[in-house]
Parts: sequence; structure tokens; C-alpha cells
Amino acid sequence: MSETVDVLICGGGSAGLSAGVWLARCGVSFKILEKRDGALETGQADGVQCRTVEIFESFGLAETLLKEAYHAMEIAFWAPVTDDSGRGIRRTNYTADTEPGLSHLPHVLLSQARINELLTIEMERVAGRPCVEYSCEVQGLEVDSESAKDSNAYPVTVKALKDGAEKSYRAKYVLGSDGAHSVIRKSLGFKMIGDSSDAVWGVMDIYPRTNFPDIRKKAVINSEAGNLMIIPREGDFLARFYIELEDVVAKDVTLEELHTQARLIFQPYSLEVAETVWWSAYAIGQRLADHFHKDYRVFLSGDACHTHSPKAGQGMNVSLQDGYNIGWKLATVLRGQAGPELLETYVSERQKIAAELIEFDRNWTKFFSSTYRQEHGITPEDVQKQFALAGRYTAGQAIHYEDSIIVDARMSQPGIATGLTVGMRFPSAQVIRLADARAIQLVQALTTDSRWHVVAFAGNVSSENLVPLQDLSLRLGKVVDAFTPVDVDRDTIINPILVLSSKRTEVEQNWIPDTFTPVVSKWKIKSLFKVFVDDEGYNAAHGHAYEKYGVDPKRGALVIVRPDQ
Amino acid sequence: MSETVDVLICGGGSAGLSAGVWLARCGVSFKILEKRDGALETGQADGVQCRTVEIFESFGLAETLLKEAYHAMEIAFWAPVTDDSGRGIRRTNYTADTEPGLSHLPHVLLSQARINELLTIEMERVAGRPCVEYSCEVQGLEVDSESAKDSNAYPVTVKALKDGAEKSYRAKYVLGSDGAHSVIRKSLGFKMIGDSSDAVWGVMDIYPRTNFPDIRKKAVINSEAGNLMIIPREGDFLARFYIELEDVVAKDVTLEELHTQARLIFQPYSLEVAETVWWSAYAIGQRLADHFHKDYRVFLSGDACHTHSPKAGQGMNVSLQDGYNIGWKLATVLRGQAGPELLETYVSERQKIAAELIEFDRNWTKFFSSTYRQEHGITPEDVQKQFALAGRYTAGQAIHYEDSIIVDARMSQPGIATGLTVGMRFPSAQVIRLADARAIQLVQALTTDSRWHVVAFAGNVSSENLVPLQDLSLRLGKVVDAFTPVDVDRDTIINPILVLSSKRTEVEQNWIPDTFTPVVSKWKIKSLFKVFVDDEGYNAAHGHAYEKYGVDPKRGALVIVRPDQ
Repeated sequence: MSETVDVLICGGGSAGLSAGVWLARCGVSFKILEKRDGALETGQADGVQCRTVEIFESFGLAETLLKEAYHAMEIAFWAPVTDDSGRGIRRTNYTADTEPGLSHLPHVLLSQARINELLTIEMERVAGRPCVEYSCEVQGLEVDSESAKDSNAYPVTVKALKDGAEKSYRAKYVLGSDGAHSVIRKSLGFKMIGDSSDAVWGVMDIYPRTNFPDIRKKAVINSEAGNLMIIPREGDFLARFYIELEDVVAKDVTLEELHTQARLIFQPYSLEVAETVWWSAYAIGQRLADHFHKDYRVFLSGDACHTHSPKAGQGMNVSLQDGYNIGWKLATVLRGQAGPELLETYVSERQKIAAELIEFDRNWTKFFSSTYRQEHGITPEDVQKQFALAGRYTAGQAIHYEDSIIVDARMSQPGIATGLTVGMRFPSAQVIRLADARAIQLVQALTTDSRWHVVAFAGNVSSENLVPLQDLSLRLGKVVDAFTPVDVDRDTIINPILVLSSKRTEVEQNWIPDTFTPVVSKWKIKSLFKVFVDDEGYNAAHGHAYEKYGVDPKRGALVIVRPDQ
Repeated sequence: MSETVDVLICGGGSAGLSAGVWLARCGVSFKILEKRDGALETGQADGVQCRTVEIFESFGLAETLLKEAYHAMEIAFWAPVTDDSGRGIRRTNYTADTEPGLSHLPHVLLSQARINELLTIEMERVAGRPCVEYSCEVQGLEVDSESAKDSNAYPVTVKALKDGAEKSYRAKYVLGSDGAHSVIRKSLGFKMIGDSSDAVWGVMDIYPRTNFPDIRKKAVINSEAGNLMIIPREGDFLARFYIELEDVVAKDVTLEELHTQARLIFQPYSLEVAETVWWSAYAIGQRLADHFHKDYRVFLSGDACHTHSPKAGQGMNVSLQDGYNIGWKLATVLRGQAGPELLETYVSERQKIAAELIEFDRNWTKFFSSTYRQEHGITPEDVQKQFALAGRYTAGQAIHYEDSIIVDARMSQPGIATGLTVGMRFPSAQVIRLADARAIQLVQALTTDSRWHVVAFAGNVSSENLVPLQDLSLRLGKVVDAFTPVDVDRDTIINPILVLSSKRTEVEQNWIPDTFTPVVSKWKIKSLFKVFVDDEGYNAAHGHAYEKYGVDPKRGALVIVRPDQ
């Protein structure tokens, strides 16, 4: 007897969980199968780049993440001493960890176990039920390509072992997020293309006793004894060390070797390890799956389709963003609000990102390798420059989707909002909400529930000049009504947002036309929360949103923002 | 058979819970008796003034509170139309709800049920056990005044009914936070002094459908038809209305009357009530207990010793602050770190505050009464002015404790830190943490665990001029060591904080002397989290902390901050 579910997610890691949160928010029937017998307890990844923190914000989880995590503000670069003594290391420079202004949220570090826990709690809170089947190991899957043409069919069958007993699931869609050794991928006969390099890195989470001054900063140390990167962790004392190891095989590395190597690199600073919480050693490889989907019914995500080094802190982030990309699309198709061709954009968008990631990581890893640097005459200053160049990429803010059925750069007019790029995420700016005078980040008005957002920058309004705004409301209202069933709130499908450049106290609430104040909720009350002004607030400096988005208040702009921003 | 506990808290409201959180944090044996059969579901109070939000921050609970609550930014004042039409109301002015700069945290509104829940969850999380005995009704108490002289005795006996069965508790200390009809107070024979005025107010939490433009702002409406105050609530639609009622008896008021009166006052704006969640009507009275303690073993707090109108949003706040005042004192005495005379300061400090509150409320209530205003020729503009004057008080920032064994204004030198007042709370300023370059609020470094904090403003340091800082460290270190047992971390009793006026990048970590980098934790690692600079950060503007505290960097200052800030 098969269990039937609309979306079956195989693997409860970052990719599966972020898709799960979306599906729960959209009320879609789904289940996650996970072979572990419970939640993750320690995790390899820990870097949460700005873009991922933005995603957490969109899920309403940023407060806890920001509270618990280490905030990376600065990177310290250390190089071999070049003076007469010729021994030890010296700090060459500090740089910002993240280019100021790149995001309204910081780059943070927190154990992946805790990150997954936050996602799981939120997913199950919203769904109102347990969503993860633990101790459930996927054995293989089959797709009936014929019935896959029927959008109402359940063409995918997944076999799994739950506590030794065989189980069978039938699903409309399957997300293969079951890691680097993906059974889903292998079942489909897809291959990982790429290589495993010789460079071996050791990693350990330790409680260090040291007089090294930058122990609570991200620090990149190039010394004569080797390379080491410090990534401080949540709490006051824990830190992660990445250490380059030469002429070794990963599986032969011992913890003692890592300790010794770290002490050598740290000289003249002292280092005692009070406790080692977790450690590992691995050879770096960059590999990419040759296919990302089967009949657009089974999709790979996360490590199941791209593996790479953890050096740039990308792994968990790109995986989580895979899930963030597909979650709302599956929900939209399952609700009948879009045809199945929407799912093709998951493949085209994320395959490109994965390929870029592999390429980036290949270059990035070289810069960390002492051998490569010596061979190519690369100086510590070059490494530092490379860090700065890569900053935007590693923050997750360089993701750029090509034109498709849901990205249309060709028909857009970039000149009217020069601060935005069609195909890239909508950045935030602080604005003041008209109804309650509160300063908020504009992206917080873009609720994460598969709605599309239309942000209207309508310039300055005054009592003598309300006609253009009323005209905009009328025309936008027609579009909204064309997509919205009559028996639901008017902002259910399209969420209209109005940003004015007027002074806050010079705008009257009753000037705002009805497209921007729809009657909503079971109480049928006008929503006053979609109208903002670009002005200063009581306890908030001016956000300069028009300037940030590059919109001329005299000309205005209309920006369409996807559910995933 | 009596149950024995160090501190017995009678009443699980705001006062009892905030004391409970303190006691849990300090590891003190305590229990709360509550006659309700479970957590509060709706609550009368909802205003959380800035000072209370600061207390939530000190308990690590501000994130959730700020996320869920309505933020009060602005007050709209409305008065009768004075032009020829002579009908309806018009807006006269807007003012800031809270004087900008008064606190780094805002004034917010959230259901008392949720506020109590946040405190309960935190208390039980820290204590690692349930702390509240529900369905347990206190019947009376006795104090053995003779044994009360012995600090190790359990001189207080409390009788209670738990599910009909008699229970008996023996405690070293009892906190009577059992509300306006306090059994503890009555058992001790204490009386409430004061009066119940004739003014009757109705209050209702409603979902309003209206075209009144300031429905999502705090609004004070004086109309010919009466007075109404709007307090928006958490979520997008709920609002609380306070309505003045004339010539009525509180118990005869009906919900229909409140709706009708609100509609009359709203004219010419429409008002439909989609749903009423909660409502009540009451006569305002201001009353104060004649005694606040018995043998300094039983203490009254909250409504048990002061009752007043809810108009200025003070009730829950002052109660919660009562608990915040006594919690750490009980813990300090029970640990033997101070003599029992410390508890006398609870009475002297909070009795003064309660008396001021009663006096403030008496005046405040008059301003809300139409009759009083007519009789005394008070205009809407006068009301508005009074609001501004009272702002600091209602924000909870006007609390000023007199000299006692723990407040010493006479020996202090106010001139060296002109932004501070001895006996008032230590305000926050943004500073940059040296170790990780992160911008944080200085009060967040003052951990809430009954430690005393010494904040040293040591001015500018440079490699040529380290002697004064080393000298300070030496001298302060001697004081710290005099109070600290040798077998605990050096910052267990006194928490030394260093704030420099130097540029961040011009200070080296290894210049910081050991009093400010104590070796702590089970790993015996140097703490690098007590040193700050008054500088700008990567994503943070300059905090101007020295300017804010009025400290001359050339002169410096040493500020001693109580555990309750």
C-alpha cells in the first residue's frame, strides 16, 4: 500500500527544509524522508551569508538567527614576517567582511544543526504537524514518464526502508535533496562530473586558549608553516579552524596533526586547545550533476547535484537557496496558478548558479593553496584583493537569473530604477509606514507566501495632484482583478505596495486609492500596511529609498518582485 | 507536612514573574503560587513602556517582544471642529509617542497574556523545571517575628488550597504579588489608602472597520460627545478603545453602550465593530498600601500595594519593575553576598515610586475627564502639552531612587559624567566591541545575573601611554579580588567593562590589562567581550557614547551600575 503525497522531499538538510517551509506556508501536502534517526546534532557548514539571512528574515526567523549567531564584521589578514627576524606572522590588513551597504542584514555563523532546527520548528509550526519521517532511508525511485504528462497524476514512486520495513510513496513531485551520495540521483542514472583535487584540508571546532589577537575575528593566516583560516562561532569562545595539509591522504589525518599544524602556523602566538568539539579532514572536489531533473517531476537540489569545498562558506547557502527557489514554484503549479513550465525555470536558474559556484570554488580553492600560490607568484596582498572581489559573490548577492517566463529583462526599462537589476534579488531599503509612522525594511512588506509583489514608486503626491495616483490604482487594480478569484482577498495573488517620496506628515491616509488599501481578513477591514513614504522617522534616519533604488521621483517606477524576491 | 522553599511568590502576574526570572537566573530556590488554573489568556494591561522593554532586553527577551508587538511611534490629537459647521472632530497635531533619544528601545503594545507567557517560558527554561503551582489559592500567612531575626530561619508560613486540599509552605521570604485583592496584604492587616473616583471608563479590544485615518496610531480624541483614546494592538487590525462614560455606574455599562458612544465620538468618521474580543468598564481609583513589608520577610508588590487607572499604561510596568527591583536583592541576600538590610531598599525605593505613580495618575486622570477640563478651562492644546511633559514619566525613565546603602549620589561626582544621574537607570549607547568589531548597545554587556558592573571610561589609549590604563586595571583588580572568592571566575561578582574613546583600529588587543580580560569559563579562556570603543563600525554610524554620557575623554569616569541597571 503506497502513501500518496503531492511533494515528497528526500533528505531533510538545508535544501529540503527550506523547500518544506515554503510548502508549509502555502498549505501544500508534502513529506520529508530523512535517513538519520533524528535531528542533526553537529554540522559541517556554519556560514550563513547575507542572502541566506535575508531568506530567514522572509520566513520570519531572522531574529533568533541574529541573536544566537556570531556576526562576521571584519577579516584580518596575516602574512609571514618579512623583517630580519624572518619568523612568525604579522597582520597586514583588516577589511570589512561584507561590503557595507550590500545587504541590510549581516553575514553570520551558526551551527548547521541549529539552523536546520530553526527551519524544522517553523515548518512544523506552520504546517501544524510533524513533517519529517526520520529513520527512513530511500532505496530508489521510478518515474512513469507517460503519466507524467498528466498534471494530476502521481507519476513518481519512491521505495524506502523505515526501521527495516519497506515503504512505498507515490508523489506528484519529488525533490532529491539527499546529499552528495544521493540515492535519487543514482536511481535516475545521473552522474557527477568533475574531479577531486589533491589538496587536503583539516577542519576543527575548538575552544582555543591563545594570545593571538584576532581570535574573535575571521582571520586568514598565510604563514611559512602553512595556511589557516579562523571562523569564530556562536557563543563567546568556540572557533572553527580550517588548516591546509600538504602531502597527506585525508583519511590518515589525525586530530593531533591538526593541533600541531595549527600551533606551528600560530607562532609566535601561543595556542592551547581546551576542547575539540568536532573535527574532520577532506580532499576538495568540485563536481556537478549532468542532469538536474527527470521529466520535470523529480528535481535534484543541494549536494545531490553540486559538491565543492566549504572554503567560501557556500555549501549550505546554495542548497538552502535551491529549496527557496523551487518551494513557491511547486506550490504555484500545484494550486493551478501556473502551468508546469514554471518548474523548468528551477532547472535553468539553479543549474546556472551551480555551474558558477563550481567555477568560483575552483578558482577560490587555488588561492588558498600554498603550492598554487608559490607556483604562480601570488602574494598575500593578491589573496586579500581576491577576497574583496569575491565578497559580493560569497555574500550570495551576485545571483543573476537569465530571462525566462518569469524574468524579463528585455522588456524592462532599467533606466527608471538604476539601483535594481532585472533577474537579481530586490534589495531592501528603510521606509516609513504611513499608517503607524514606523520605520521598517521594505522587503518585510513582501510577505513570503507565494504572492507576487508590485512595488509602485509613485513619487510625490499632494491634494492638488491625486489624479495620476488614482489612475495608477485603477490600471493596476484591473491587472490585480484579472488574476484574483472574486471570493478571496484582493491581495491574495498580487500584493500591491506603494512607496511615495512625499514628506510623511504631508500625506493623508484618505488620499490612498483602493488598490493599495484592499479590504482583507475575515473582519473585512481595510489593510493600511501597504503604503510607505521615503522620509525620516522619529527614531530612524532617512532611508533614501528612491536614491537607493535609483528612481527619479518625478518619473516613478513600477517594479515586479517574484515571490522569492 | 510543609513544603520548604527559600522564596515563595504568591501570584503569577507581572511582578511575580519578573522576580521569578531573576531568581531562576540566580539559581535561587523559589516557587510561584497562582490561583488561576493555567496561564493568563486575556489581560487588561497591554502597554510596555520603554523601560520595561529594556528589562525584557536584559532578560534576553526583547527580540520576541519587539517582533510581535505594536510599536507606538506617534500620537495623534483630535479636538472638536471649531469652524462654522461646528460638528465632528479634526486632527490638531501629531507628536512623537516617546521623546526621541529617551531610550534605545521603543514603547510597544502587546497582550499581557503573551507578556506573561514570555516571562514564564524564560523562567522555566532557565530553572529547568516548572516553577508555577496553578490552581493554588493562598488562604493566609503568618510571620514568626522572633525567628525572622535569624537569617537562616524560615519564619513565614503560608496556607493555601490546591484543588480543594490544604497545603502549607514555609519560606525564608514571601513576595505578595497577588493583585488588588491581595490575600497576603489582608492577612497582614495592611490597608489600601486612597479613594475611588466617580469617573467611569469603558475599555474594549475590537476589530474596527472605519475610515478614521489614525486608526493605526495612538490617538487621543476630545469631542463634544466625549473622550476616547485609541491604542493599536499587535497584529494588523486589533485596537483598544478607552472611552469616558458620564453619569453611569461601572457595573451597569453594556457593550452596546460602548459601541454607540464610540460611534458618536468618531463622527463624521464611520465606525463598525467587526468583532469585540474583550471589554470592561471600571471606576478609577488611586490607592496605596499603608505598609509594604512585614519584618522585611514578606514584601508586597504590584497591584497588591498600588492600584490606579490604566490610562497612562503604567500598571503592568510598575508591577514588573517591582519584581525586577526585588529579584536580585533576594538572590544576593540568600547567597550571603549582602546583609538583609539590602532588602530595606526595596521598600524605600518602590514605596516612593508607588506614591509618585498614584500622584501622577491622579493628575493624569483629571486631564482625561471632560468635566474637569470644562471646570478648569483646559484646552485640547493643554492636554497635548501635558502628554509631552508626562512622556518621560510614562516611558518609565523618570524613576529616581534616593540615596541608600546602594545609591550614593552624595559621594559621586556628577560633573565627570553629565549624561548620567546617580539613582537613575544607566541609559544605553552604541559602542563597538574591540574583539569582533561588532556594534552593540552597551547595556547588553551588563549581563542580568546579579553582578555589579563597573564601567570604566578610560579615554584614549596608545602604545606610548598605557601606564594609566595599567594602573586603573591594578587598582580596580584589587577591589574585584576583595569581593570575589578565589575559586570562581574573576568576573562573577563584579563585571568590569572598559570603554575607550580611541579609534578602533588604533587599539591592540594585547594592550588591554587583565582586569578587563579575565580568564573565565570551564575552558579557562580569556574573555575578550568586555572592551569597547566609541567609534563607528562597518554598518553602524558612530554611537557618540562619550558625548551621550557626558564624559570628557581626557578626564574619564568610573560608573558603578547596579544589577538592575
